[in-house]
Formats: sequence, structure tokens, C-alpha cells
Amino acid sequence: MVVQGLCSKKLKALITLTTDFGTADWFVGVMKGVITGIAPQTQVTDLTHAVPAGDVRAGAFVLAAAYRFFPRGTIHVVVVDPGVGSQRKAIVVQTRNYRFIGPDNGVLSWALRQEKITAVRSIENTRYFLQPVSRTFHGRDVFAPVAAHLSAGILLARLGPAQADFIRLPWNAARREKNSIRGEIVYIDRFGNCITNIEDAMLARLGTQRALEVLRGRKRLCPVADYYQAVPAGQPVAVSGSSGFLEIAVNRSHAASILRLRIGDPIKVRCR
Amino acid sequence: MVVQGLCSKKLKALITLTTDFGTADWFVGVMKGVITGIAPQTQVTDLTHAVPAGDVRAGAFVLAAAYRFFPRGTIHVVVVDPGVGSQRKAIVVQTRNYRFIGPDNGVLSWALRQEKITAVRSIENTRYFLQPVSRTFHGRDVFAPVAAHLSAGILLARLGPAQADFIRLPWNAARREKNSIRGEIVYIDRFGNCITNIEDAMLARLGTQRALEVLRGRKRLCPVADYYQAVPAGQPVAVSGSSGFLEIAVNRSHAASILRLRIGDPIKVRCR
Amino acid sequence: MVVQGLCSKKLKALITLTTDFGTADWFVGVMKGVITGIAPQTQVTDLTHAVPAGDVRAGAFVLAAAYRFFPRGTIHVVVVDPGVGSQRKAIVVQTRNYRFIGPDNGVLSWALRQEKITAVRSIENTRYFLQPVSRTFHGRDVFAPVAAHLSAGILLARLGPAQADFIRLPWNAARREKNSIRGEIVYIDRFGNCITNIEDAMLARLGTQRALEVLRGRKRLCPVADYYQAVPAGQPVAVSGSSGFLEIAVNRSHAASILRLRIGDPIKVRCR
Repeated sequence: MVVQGLCSKKLKALITLTTDFGTADWFVGVMKGVITGIAPQTQVTDLTHAVPAGDVRAGAFVLAAAYRFFPRGTIHVVVVDPGVGSQRKAIVVQTRNYRFIGPDNGVLSWALRQEKITAVRSIENTRYFLQPVSRTFHGRDVFAPVAAHLSAGILLARLGPAQADFIRLPWNAARREKNSIRGEIVYIDRFGNCITNIEDAMLARLGTQRALEVLRGRKRLCPVADYYQAVPAGQPVAVSGSSGFLEIAVNRSHAASILRLRIGDPIKVRCR
Repeated sequence: MVVQGLCSKKLKALITLTTDFGTADWFVGVMKGVITGIAPQTQVTDLTHAVPAGDVRAGAFVLAAAYRFFPRGTIHVVVVDPGVGSQRKAIVVQTRNYRFIGPDNGVLSWALRQEKITAVRSIENTRYFLQPVSRTFHGRDVFAPVAAHLSAGILLARLGPAQADFIRLPWNAARREKNSIRGEIVYIDRFGNCITNIEDAMLARLGTQRALEVLRGRKRLCPVADYYQAVPAGQPVAVSGSSGFLEIAVNRSHAASILRLRIGDPIKVRCR
Repeated sequence: MVVQGLCSKKLKALITLTTDFGTADWFVGVMKGVITGIAPQTQVTDLTHAVPAGDVRAGAFVLAAAYRFFPRGTIHVVVVDPGVGSQRKAIVVQTRNYRFIGPDNGVLSWALRQEKITAVRSIENTRYFLQPVSRTFHGRDVFAPVAAHLSAGILLARLGPAQADFIRLPWNAARREKNSIRGEIVYIDRFGNCITNIEDAMLARLGTQRALEVLRGRKRLCPVADYYQAVPAGQPVAVSGSSGFLEIAVNRSHAASILRLRIGDPIKVRCR
């Protein structure tokens, strides 16, 4: 039914954007304009622009949860950059499958924990920037044009000198105890589902899913189950979420509001 | 002024997305990543991701109002799926002009009322899913990859067995009475305009537009007119809206707030 | 790492959309559907759809701040159109580098102040409209199809008769006084930064940046500095913003809320 063009089986040059710019202003739009001017055939896909303003940890979590669902070769650009215009560096990190571009403030680091890194460069070559570079909008003047030039084929080494390392955000790993796991809420999504730092693999080692339950303090919060509908509407339940972590949900409702859970809140999983 | 490429006159493979995922998280972004990985030349267009969480009727209305403005061959994917992970089926419905993909919970049914259906298939062939399939995010793991494979050219029959029918949401049709039509509010848009279930054709049979008025209960609410500016700013007016239904608006203001109208509220149109 | 297709070095046909439609409904989606049906290879990029409903001045500011970051040949479509369906005209304005399409209500005029205009046409030829044309949604029925036909190559003259001029919104220019500049807030962005009408060039003629300060009434509001971090977190500062105007910000916070600044508020810059 759909006739496909000549380009059909080719790989597609792809850039993703993750920012705290919101979509109420023109900021994201002009980043796309700059990219298209430099790399006309590159597709730009939004991850989200609703990272809370300046919240580097939230940006890092979004990227870590999402980046690997994009095809090999994708360039991931993240601009959550409260230090824009000051001395913070800008970096590009190449891994076996992707390239990551952003301020060197840790926002890339949780995704990079999962990747095999092959090069780290400081972005310094102003030849690839939009001139004049503003003090306040490096998304438009630095990150968008650099990503576009990379997408169009320039060598990574052209961007600036190799850098030994980059800033890493601490990740509070969940801790296994004798018959339980201690973790915490790390992200709350639009449905109010509360994503924890407890990975599925760790949970599987504790016991079969149906034998587990979640506690807050000393009080039982909910069972662990296969899916939301394992409990009646309005009841809490913990499930293996789509990002590989245990999530606390309320069937057909907003867990964070109903259970008054917030990012950083400690929780515990144990065998019943 | 604009030089067009080789591909210029070709049809474009197109997928639309309608979800209740919001755009604050990465959910929509990764659906696009998955699609591009499978069908690199397919364009993905958002209808909206702001369907109220789990509101199957709102999703059904959005799709019904919008789908026909896309070119022939478009694949419409709708993920408003409060039953995700449970026993609800996933379906693909082919019509003369389009393919529709979504959970079999009625969300496709109001659009399909208007279409000539040529095939209905249950989506069961896990070969076209993203593995492992999560319990909570079939948008990413089932609907996106299936739509992409269809867009890339696989046969519908590969997805699963033919299905005799699908779940249909009841549609409260407006009722013609002697000198009036009884209807109700079915959707409220971003401007506060209140879309009713009274179709233009039905209205035309009642009388010429200028002879009509809208009542709430026994009280006159507003005249029917050609456009918003037929009344002074701040005044209510009913017009033939862009989706083919009578809409109640307030010139330069937000009718739903000012008139306190809500979805489901009954209204009546009669000759003056 | 990324293999590029045949079309790689070609110019890209590009249309930008700026509206007050929001993204909660299907309005923007169907505009894209209509465009793709007519001009399948044209890329559509959103500037923003969050212009406050009917706020022609906000739409004009967004366009003026953003349009020039898109490649030559881009068609900019703006639909902030409180007079839709009434007697207001629709226009297309061609400049040396771009084409602009919108209602003739001034929404294009602040961008056009900066451009060399080569043609102005009234959009009247219904052959290029989507039929039947609704009374309430010219974004879908007039502006989208006309932009798509232009993108696909029709001559501007086909759209309608030449028009001598178009409606211009007044622009309150900042005024230079003896040792100061009087200006006002013209836009507040998502971060709460308050953009003024004081252009960088005007500021530079008043004195070196570090010698300047901003007053509200007779009270000092903040210093002018190079970037946000020149002051401690939570403190106000004025910087040369990315759109070429002085902006009042609060480092790591929301200036408009904290300083209670609103659009139209007068401010003054003077030498310390």
C-alpha cells in the first residue's frame, strides 16, 4: 500500500535532543533549524524537553533509560546546563554504538555507565560553532551545530583535544541485605509511577516475583506482581518496569500522589 | 528558491502516533527510535500525546477527528491502553485507505465507523516485537515495532490470525426531535471550545444556520452563527466546527470555563 | 559511523510552524498530515505551539527571535489568528531569504522588520485550499496546504494578487537618554528570564557591560554581567540574551516570579 522511495533501505542519520528548554519558547525549534542548515538529511527526534529546569540528575536518568532504543550511530545531544556560559566544559563521548554530546556536568554519565567508551573529546574548536556564540544558549550555538557537523561526517578529533575522563554523577545503587533489598525512588513519570533504583536482575536473585513485597519504613506498601491489573483499580502494586527497574504504581491511578512518594524516598523489598 | 531532492515526488511512508504518554518522559521518543531502527525512511508524526491518562474515549475522538487528513497509506498507531500487560488483545485494522494499530479496547472504533474495513488481524506474532517484551510499555515493545515492520512492507497476515470483529465504543448519537436536536458535549479543546455530537448535516436538515439557537436545559445559551466574530468578544456562539460537529465557543475566550460546560453535558438546538 | 543516503547533500524543503494551537488536541498533527499529502519530501519543524491563545504580539516575538536560524528557503507559517473566519486577510510575504505565511494581523511584522521584502501577496486562490474550507481552522484548510504547494514549487503569484503592504504591530523601541536607556519587558521565557526591548548594540554604545546596572523605578535591580553565574545562585543579573536583547535573569531560578516582573514593565539601564 505504501510505495517507498529510493532511500528506503539506507541507514538514517539521527540526532536525539533531550533538554530542559520546554516547548513553550522557540529554543528547541531553532536548534533543529541550525541542525538542518548544516546536515539537511539528518532526522532530529525529541526525547523530551521537559526535564525540570537545571535538573542534571533527571536529565541523566531520561537519557540512560532511553538512549539504547535508538539505532546504532545515533547522536544523543543533552542540554541540561545550569552552568552555561561559565567555565564548565562541553564534551563529546564516543562509544561502540553511539555518540553523546553535552555539557561535562554529569548529565551523560548514567547512560555512559552502560556503554563501552572509545573516545572522549573536549569540544573547543569554535570553527564548528554558530558565531557569535551567545553566553546563554549553547544548545543553539555549540551543541546543535557540533552534533550536525558530526552527523554530516567530520572526524571527532576535529572538535577538540582528547580528555582523560568526564564528570560522573554518583548513582545510589540499591543494596542487598540478608533477605531484602534497600533502594529508593529515582524518577517519577507522567503516570505517577515511581521508578526505583532496584534492577530486575537483583530482584530475581532475591526470590520469585510473587513471593516479594515492598515496604516503606516498617509498613507493607504493596505486593510485587506481573502487571498493574494484578491488583484492583486504586490499589498499589510494584512491577518490573520498562526501563529495567522495579516501579511502584497504582492500578489506573497516580501512585506518587496517592502514596505521597517522592524522589529520594527509601523503600525496601523483602520475601513475604 | 527551494531545490528539491530526487525523492521529491515519491509517496512518503508515514506513521502517526496518538498516546496518553505525555511528553515529559522519554516514552514517545523511544517509540520513534524503535520505528526508525526498523523503517529508517518512515516519517513519524505526532497527533497528540496529551490524551488524558487511560481515557479511551478521548483517544477515540482525537483519532476520529484527525485520521482522514493524512495521505492514503498512513499507518495510525494509538496507544491509550489502561489494560496493558493483561489479557486485552492488540489489533491491526486495514481499511481502504489506512491501517490502524492499537489495543482492542475501542480506541480505534470511532475512526473505523467512517471507514470501509478490509481486514482485521490480532497482533500475536512475537517475531515482530521488541524482545524482551515489557509488561508495561507495549507502545515501545509491540505497537511501534509492528507499525514499523508494516511500514517497511511485511504482509498484514504475518502479524497474527484474522479476527472477526473488534471492540466498539458506544457513540451517543444526537437525536432529532420535532423541531429540535438533542445532543451532548463530547470533547473540549485547548481553546475551551466545546465540541458536540451534532453533525453539520443533521443541523442543516433542521433549518438554516441563522434560524437556529442552542439551549441548555430550558435556557437559551447562544445563537448558531457562521464564525466566532458574529458575536461580540466574550459572548457565546455555536459554529460548525472543523471536525464536522457543532461547537459551542465564546468569542476570544474559553467557553468551557465561562459557561461551565463539561463532557457529557446535554444541549439542545432548536429553531428560533 | 553513519552511512548517509543519496539525498545527503541536497537542500531540504522546510516548513516551520508557530501557532497557539497547543499540543493537547490534533490540530498541529493534521496540519502536518495535510502538508505531507501535498509535499511528501518537505520537513516540518515546530517552532512552538504554546503561543498564548490569540496573543498576536507573543507570536510575532517568537517568530522574530527564531526565523533567521533556519536555512535559506525555509517557509515560516504562523497561525495566531483570533480573527479566523472573519474578514481578515491571509498573506504570504517573500523576502530575500525566506517566505512567511500567516493571517495579515501583524503576527509576521516583527520578523519582517529585519528582512528585505521582495513580494507581498494576498492568499485568495481557493484552488490551493483544502475543500471545504472550515470557518474555524484555516491552519489546516488554508495555511498548511498553501505552504505545502509553495514548498512543492508553485509560483507565489498563483496564490493571489499583489498587496501593497501588510499590517504592522507597533514596536516600542527602547529610548536612549543622557546616561541611560529606558526599555521594557517584552517576553518571558520558560526559565522565567525576562527579555527586554534593549538591543545589544544600543547597550554597547552606553558603556562597557561591567559598568552598567539595571533599575526598576528608582531602585537598583541588578548588575549587567557576562553570564548568569556572575552572581550567586538566587541573585538577579542582566545578560545579553541569545535573541540579541538584554535579559533579566536570576541565577538558577525564575526571575519573573522572584522579581515579580511582567510583560510591559518598564526598566532602565544606566552607568554605575
